[in-house]
Amino acid sequence: MTKTLSRFLYGGDYNPDQWTEETWPEDIKVFKKADLNSATINIFSWAVLEPREGVYDFSKLDKIVQELSDANFDIVMGTATAAMPAWMFKKYPDIARVDYQGRRHVFGQRHNFCPNSKNYQRLDSELVEKLAQHYADNPHIVVWHVNNEYGGDCYCGNCQNAFRDWLRNKYKTLGALNKAWNMNVWSHTIYDWDEIVVPNELGDAWGPESSETIVAGLSIDYLRFQSESLQNLFKMEKAVIKKYDPETPVTTNFHSLPNKMIDYQKWAKDQDIISYDSYPTYDAPAYKPAFLYDLMRSLKHQPFMLMESAPSQVNWQSYSPLKRPGQMAATELQAVAHGADTVQFFQLKQAVGGSEKFHSAIIAHSQRTDTRAFRELADLGQKLKEAGPTILGSKTKAKVAIVFDWSNFWSYEYVDGITQDLNYVDSILDYYRQFYERNIPTDIIGVDDDFSNYDLVVAPVLYMVKAGLAEKINSYVEKGGHFVTTYMSGMVDSTDNVYLGGYPGPLKDVTGIWVEESDAMVLGQKVRVKMDDKEYETSLMCDLIHPNKAKVLASYADEFYTGTAAITENDYGKGKAWYVGTKLGHQGLTQLFNHIVLETGVESLVCDSHKLEVTKRVTADGKELYFVLNMSNEERELPNKFVDYEDILTGEKAKSSMKGWDVQVLTK
Amino acid sequence: MTKTLSRFLYGGDYNPDQWTEETWPEDIKVFKKADLNSATINIFSWAVLEPREGVYDFSKLDKIVQELSDANFDIVMGTATAAMPAWMFKKYPDIARVDYQGRRHVFGQRHNFCPNSKNYQRLDSELVEKLAQHYADNPHIVVWHVNNEYGGDCYCGNCQNAFRDWLRNKYKTLGALNKAWNMNVWSHTIYDWDEIVVPNELGDAWGPESSETIVAGLSIDYLRFQSESLQNLFKMEKAVIKKYDPETPVTTNFHSLPNKMIDYQKWAKDQDIISYDSYPTYDAPAYKPAFLYDLMRSLKHQPFMLMESAPSQVNWQSYSPLKRPGQMAATELQAVAHGADTVQFFQLKQAVGGSEKFHSAIIAHSQRTDTRAFRELADLGQKLKEAGPTILGSKTKAKVAIVFDWSNFWSYEYVDGITQDLNYVDSILDYYRQFYERNIPTDIIGVDDDFSNYDLVVAPVLYMVKAGLAEKINSYVEKGGHFVTTYMSGMVDSTDNVYLGGYPGPLKDVTGIWVEESDAMVLGQKVRVKMDDKEYETSLMCDLIHPNKAKVLASYADEFYTGTAAITENDYGKGKAWYVGTKLGHQGLTQLFNHIVLETGVESLVCDSHKLEVTKRVTADGKELYFVLNMSNEERELPNKFVDYEDILTGEKAKSSMKGWDVQVLTK
Amino acid sequence: MTKTLSRFLYGGDYNPDQWTEETWPEDIKVFKKADLNSATINIFSWAVLEPREGVYDFSKLDKIVQELSDANFDIVMGTATAAMPAWMFKKYPDIARVDYQGRRHVFGQRHNFCPNSKNYQRLDSELVEKLAQHYADNPHIVVWHVNNEYGGDCYCGNCQNAFRDWLRNKYKTLGALNKAWNMNVWSHTIYDWDEIVVPNELGDAWGPESSETIVAGLSIDYLRFQSESLQNLFKMEKAVIKKYDPETPVTTNFHSLPNKMIDYQKWAKDQDIISYDSYPTYDAPAYKPAFLYDLMRSLKHQPFMLMESAPSQVNWQSYSPLKRPGQMAATELQAVAHGADTVQFFQLKQAVGGSEKFHSAIIAHSQRTDTRAFRELADLGQKLKEAGPTILGSKTKAKVAIVFDWSNFWSYEYVDGITQDLNYVDSILDYYRQFYERNIPTDIIGVDDDFSNYDLVVAPVLYMVKAGLAEKINSYVEKGGHFVTTYMSGMVDSTDNVYLGGYPGPLKDVTGIWVEESDAMVLGQKVRVKMDDKEYETSLMCDLIHPNKAKVLASYADEFYTGTAAITENDYGKGKAWYVGTKLGHQGLTQLFNHIVLETGVESLVCDSHKLEVTKRVTADGKELYFVLNMSNEERELPNKFVDYEDILTGEKAKSSMKGWDVQVLTK
Repeated sequence: MTKTLSRFLYGGDYNPDQWTEETWPEDIKVFKKADLNSATINIFSWAVLEPREGVYDFSKLDKIVQELSDANFDIVMGTATAAMPAWMFKKYPDIARVDYQGRRHVFGQRHNFCPNSKNYQRLDSELVEKLAQHYADNPHIVVWHVNNEYGGDCYCGNCQNAFRDWLRNKYKTLGALNKAWNMNVWSHTIYDWDEIVVPNELGDAWGPESSETIVAGLSIDYLRFQSESLQNLFKMEKAVIKKYDPETPVTTNFHSLPNKMIDYQKWAKDQDIISYDSYPTYDAPAYKPAFLYDLMRSLKHQPFMLMESAPSQVNWQSYSPLKRPGQMAATELQAVAHGADTVQFFQLKQAVGGSEKFHSAIIAHSQRTDTRAFRELADLGQKLKEAGPTILGSKTKAKVAIVFDWSNFWSYEYVDGITQDLNYVDSILDYYRQFYERNIPTDIIGVDDDFSNYDLVVAPVLYMVKAGLAEKINSYVEKGGHFVTTYMSGMVDSTDNVYLGGYPGPLKDVTGIWVEESDAMVLGQKVRVKMDDKEYETSLMCDLIHPNKAKVLASYADEFYTGTAAITENDYGKGKAWYVGTKLGHQGLTQLFNHIVLETGVESLVCDSHKLEVTKRVTADGKELYFVLNMSNEERELPNKFVDYEDILTGEKAKSSMKGWDVQVLTK
Repeated sequence: MTKTLSRFLYGGDYNPDQWTEETWPEDIKVFKKADLNSATINIFSWAVLEPREGVYDFSKLDKIVQELSDANFDIVMGTATAAMPAWMFKKYPDIARVDYQGRRHVFGQRHNFCPNSKNYQRLDSELVEKLAQHYADNPHIVVWHVNNEYGGDCYCGNCQNAFRDWLRNKYKTLGALNKAWNMNVWSHTIYDWDEIVVPNELGDAWGPESSETIVAGLSIDYLRFQSESLQNLFKMEKAVIKKYDPETPVTTNFHSLPNKMIDYQKWAKDQDIISYDSYPTYDAPAYKPAFLYDLMRSLKHQPFMLMESAPSQVNWQSYSPLKRPGQMAATELQAVAHGADTVQFFQLKQAVGGSEKFHSAIIAHSQRTDTRAFRELADLGQKLKEAGPTILGSKTKAKVAIVFDWSNFWSYEYVDGITQDLNYVDSILDYYRQFYERNIPTDIIGVDDDFSNYDLVVAPVLYMVKAGLAEKINSYVEKGGHFVTTYMSGMVDSTDNVYLGGYPGPLKDVTGIWVEESDAMVLGQKVRVKMDDKEYETSLMCDLIHPNKAKVLASYADEFYTGTAAITENDYGKGKAWYVGTKLGHQGLTQLFNHIVLETGVESLVCDSHKLEVTKRVTADGKELYFVLNMSNEERELPNKFVDYEDILTGEKAKSSMKGWDVQVLTK
Repeated sequence: MTKTLSRFLYGGDYNPDQWTEETWPEDIKVFKKADLNSATINIFSWAVLEPREGVYDFSKLDKIVQELSDANFDIVMGTATAAMPAWMFKKYPDIARVDYQGRRHVFGQRHNFCPNSKNYQRLDSELVEKLAQHYADNPHIVVWHVNNEYGGDCYCGNCQNAFRDWLRNKYKTLGALNKAWNMNVWSHTIYDWDEIVVPNELGDAWGPESSETIVAGLSIDYLRFQSESLQNLFKMEKAVIKKYDPETPVTTNFHSLPNKMIDYQKWAKDQDIISYDSYPTYDAPAYKPAFLYDLMRSLKHQPFMLMESAPSQVNWQSYSPLKRPGQMAATELQAVAHGADTVQFFQLKQAVGGSEKFHSAIIAHSQRTDTRAFRELADLGQKLKEAGPTILGSKTKAKVAIVFDWSNFWSYEYVDGITQDLNYVDSILDYYRQFYERNIPTDIIGVDDDFSNYDLVVAPVLYMVKAGLAEKINSYVEKGGHFVTTYMSGMVDSTDNVYLGGYPGPLKDVTGIWVEESDAMVLGQKVRVKMDDKEYETSLMCDLIHPNKAKVLASYADEFYTGTAAITENDYGKGKAWYVGTKLGHQGLTQLFNHIVLETGVESLVCDSHKLEVTKRVTADGKELYFVLNMSNEERELPNKFVDYEDILTGEKAKSSMKGWDVQVLTK
């Protein structure tokens, strides 16, 4: 039985091996001053732990663990396998990746192991075995943290061989493979498994990585294979750990916005708890991190760990403005509002060297605590100490789901189609924003999730519809579900072969329409649609729709297709399906969703939210926690609904006016 | 004796091997519904035809040929050698090219055979031999289509060796080579043929391919050599075919806008008929494809095949808007207006997979014929059935020629000179537009063509003037010809060595001027010239001209060279030569050509054309066919001249008002 | 004892081996017509001198030397080692560099020898030995010119081995190296010298060259090592020459704006005389070349050679407008104004081929002398003949110094920090411009120079402060010096490890402040500061300053840090130190320096200069030469101060009005 977190963690990455041991006690004193209760260690210590092959030295790590334990810190224990020592590259060059340009790399960087290198696999599992044996019984270790931020891809000979095996296993026969990849185009027919080559710039791919390919089926399969190859490394490490420590939860930290190379939905089932590194860029609208947190929570429909976040500035953006007063706490609590059960930072102590030395930390280069940043961190620590026990383990309930699917992510952006401006994540975000702005709780689900839990399922640009999915959608709507889809949907099967008979392919039935042709709009060009007698701008592309059985909600008001259907609504069984044939601007989409939300009956948490973000988590004993966040610099008014509530962060009565970046966690 | 086309072909690329045989009869039924009479097949079937080395299987191809023949289709038979099977890369890695970055490629893509690989040459000719033997006697095959869209370059060891031989053959001695390439610069003197290395990024070239080089003579020779290497492959295939089928015309499809890597003028003599793939970009002005068609027609001064074109959208542009109603037919008929004797599409049936799956086709993914696109295609088919027999073989007669020369194309854009904005094609197009807008028929000729057929020869940016060319120009003008040239002309010999004694080198005599220096203008900067008391804007560069014997037509009105000659006219023998020392804007150039056209006496087909495009073809029995095209979205009036004419597309009386994209082919 | 120049050289690069010998006498006749007295020869003649290994042929060079000597020309003798013959690449592939992308290059280009190739070193020194032996006694050779424009970098195995030795020598132990590079980050600990790999794209570097790296200590050390490797080649050649010719000065031509890859301050001590190739871009403000000349003069605090410059256009810019009438002379004399004792061009005769064939020359392609360009060159020759003897050897005296340091140059632009817009040279130029516009003579010095000679030392963005430097600054200010520094200063030690305890690290003491945090501004974003009740715009970043002991000169007037100190002044011992916490716009900086200049008492050469550039050189016998330059197209008035002066260029009385590009060298 896997354990769960016993307290709300407030902490983050700590790399004491970058410092002399004498400094550690002072560090811990400062951490406690900010009410930290946790540290993540041993992320990148391989070179220290194993100075040469087979020789292990855990003495330094033992000492760190002891000091943190003495201070009653919960430890998130890394396995240290994400950056390999220099000696290892020298001895086993094949542990390094071959890049998209076809070049074998050498020692340097991190996250650059070939997942199919037997040498890497062996050295990796040997280290983890030693660690697991050594620390399995330590009660202070509350989570095992495997490797770090898995990602990227490799195009070496080992990968090529493993890919051929993977394909043989998937397709069984070359006939099936040739059909799946439609290989009679351009004389691509394969007659022997070993004729298959990896899709990098020397073969069938070109352009910036994962953007252009001759054979989409091949390139998408390669991404599936690479994601699985890394997943296998995770599973290998996890299995080793479980041998010695079956109860402590094991995770690896997901990351990015989101990460295109890793199918997190496929990985989720192997994670005991989801953990996520959150680094919204300075110019990201607040609904973008909200979306990502909802995605992380939805992976297992459980609270997740906010494994990394920045105490103040990061160092890797084009521009990293300071977080404004209050902004740090607001951005951390936004994660909690969407389901995080920890607040953890990268990092606890700022490094003096390395490429991240200007990334902020709890202990900054100044090593002072009389700073704005430290005061805000300590204040948040105080609040979490207060409210953490209540929040821990509370759940989120959503009646709306948005479909996000990695196979679609890959295939959609590979499309060599009528416009270059296809962007999967941005397309999804447009729709997510509709629910965010209405404070309607939303899950972000995969195509294999159960739709029947939701009143409304929105699947924008559902370009790839794998076998069975259309039937599942039909059945969901038939039974009373509500379904929204858009242009560029229902176009291809799981290996990117087009469905014949008219777009949107197998979604024609539920939507009750077919699309004869689609116009492309140059960047900046606008076409108007007319809906309810008002006009709205659209861009990107315009589907010219035949609304066979469907009702027309909007028609084009420009171009030779003026009057042609642009948005339709179809009654199907007990439910309804909408088809949005163009990229509506925010104003038009809001107008459309006013209608759709009304039709489906899904409810906002609070009706007039005064531009505040509001989420709800419910504790095991049924207490409703409303997270009310002012994700802006301006002052805003608390909705009337909360007038008698109490803020569990402070134990005080709800404030009726919220300054910029104020957050309240309100309960009755 | 080579046969000619016996009917006007309406058809295009058809890839039935991407589909099951059961679907073929239905396909042909649809084709006939659109009045197609031709199909191009076997372009990319090598992997199907030769599943392993030396084992051939033509059974599928036989069946296709049979079914098309039964349907009375003319067949354009590909040789299938443009994309090699995977097994071939595995067995003979040297068939793949080494790229400009120095990397050997592997299986993938297409059009990527090394032209100097003996293995490729052998396998190529073996396949073609089998095909020619097998199909030589088939009367339905009306054209052999060798390979596909030859292009690109290779920098491998085989090419390097062949290049050394090529150079030895061209220069005979290293002394001659060192002189031609001026190799005493930067210690480049060559003492042994095998010291010569290919000019890619690892050697003397840099920057984007074919744009920067240390030794222009070397890089230009390398392009000549690569063009010839590919040409040799064509000739090799053609010779094999002719062995078995001496009478059916053989071609390969030229392409691009135009293709920089292939000297089509050098290739033209080996083509029995010119064929061209035309894909004007969505934002190209109508005179650009017109120019390219005139270029294709002028290659042999014969009608050509429009071998490929898009039935509607393409998939490879940044943005591919729909062709507006009527636009497809107008763009196809524009090719015919300029000399095409076929209208052929890529492709007849839209693929379900591969990188071109969103390229339009006669049979779209919807597989329906009740669509706008299909109706327009069928309508065009009907019209061509009507008018095709009259049009077929009719000729175009031009009294104006514009010089377009591949050696200039290459050398001009390699110039490391006073501005980075040199663009050969754009410079030529500015001048072509002058005749296009006046509806003056124009040939696009090479420097080796006969000038004496023309009243006016325009050679903009004639940067490279090879031995004998200046004398030819002098003699042409002396005898009464009219010649226009510009800045950046007469500068270098055939291996890019500057002519001493003042620009424009050997053209000083005929133009009667010399240029002391040239100012460069930053992008966006304008300098005015004064001509006939009006002022016009110029850009790019300003030659400061000494008008020795010439008359000054325009002078600069800005900068320290205000009053200096900018445009001159020189009487030379019985003719005249103009020198345009700066890049005049369209308005100024129009003003100048009002004068030049008057002086030379060349005539427009119709004087006030109301912004309609008008061309003329004359049938063998002297019937004049006026093609009147509205290449715009707006309605326009037919010129009075045509009021009593008849439209052979419809058999009806000429319409006096032409809607957007309307076309009439008028005769008395 | 090293000789000095005995006359003011007017000449430049001459490559007669690109021409037949018959043309040489005519060339020299033209040179004399322009009053040239010097030629630089043998820069790129290796392939001519050594047609195969060990076989030397100096006959052509002998003849050139003889003809120039007969014409009483001073000869600057190249060693011809900057471009290797083709045969050498074939025989010794390791002489070519491996690039940042990891690719070994082949024959081509120039300046591309691996500095650590033993083969290159041997062949190089053998050639130089032959040359030195042969020409040591020639009295016409006044300077030896080693190689050409050293620069660039190599990442080959030879360099990697040499780098490991260099590191072993520098750090002695791996412990020291690991500490210096802070290698416990990301598991980078090194356990054996041969685990260290070169920092190119395959290892720890990424992004455009010298811009991104994981381990800044490694990458900066690699640049130091590469600069030293090339310096060793120079020293090797120089030692060989000195063996045979101990008295003639030896130099190599520095270049670029400035050259990032070469630490010229480290190289300066090995140069008998500094020489510099000056190619300001067409859009560079006049203070930029002025800065570079001051930098060159300050390297040895001696006059320098202007070894190369363009007689008119160059060919390698995006746009190369003509130099306006008078502009050529003004730009050449600007170098003299700042300390040049020669005016030399690239080149004397324009090549017919090669990538520089459109670079201007004394003898142009027209080979005429009745041109504007030639007249201006001859006019300048006449003036220099007149004034050269007076100018030669005269000195410049500055009381202001700006610190420019190559280790800072490297480390500053590697910073992976809060903004991507860090640019070292531009940051320095902002401050230089303050003195340029006030006509205050300024030296550009390194961190090892003696500060005590100056009333004011300005060190903008002194990011890297090596051991001892802060103490030196403290002591300088304590004794009465004035010191200015800025944001991004005092941050790291010599291997890029951050100083703990608050920015600006060891400069906290002298500036009397500490910086708690720094805000980053997006490109285009502005924040205002208030200084003396006026508001000024700033950009890039804003330090939030605690002005402990310092006086606040300006505070922010925007953002949440309104009122926070932005610029401070600190009394320290007998001196003062200013800290400028943000990138002030030109207006604000001018306002600040009005104050600072007043405080320090440094004086302008002339108070109201009417936008003329004014410098002063003083001859050995105390004569003051004022260079008054109109570096613009507009007419300007001479300051009153010079009303009775005489112009030594013409021997005439000073003109009170100066046309665009007029220059006067005035003395009483």
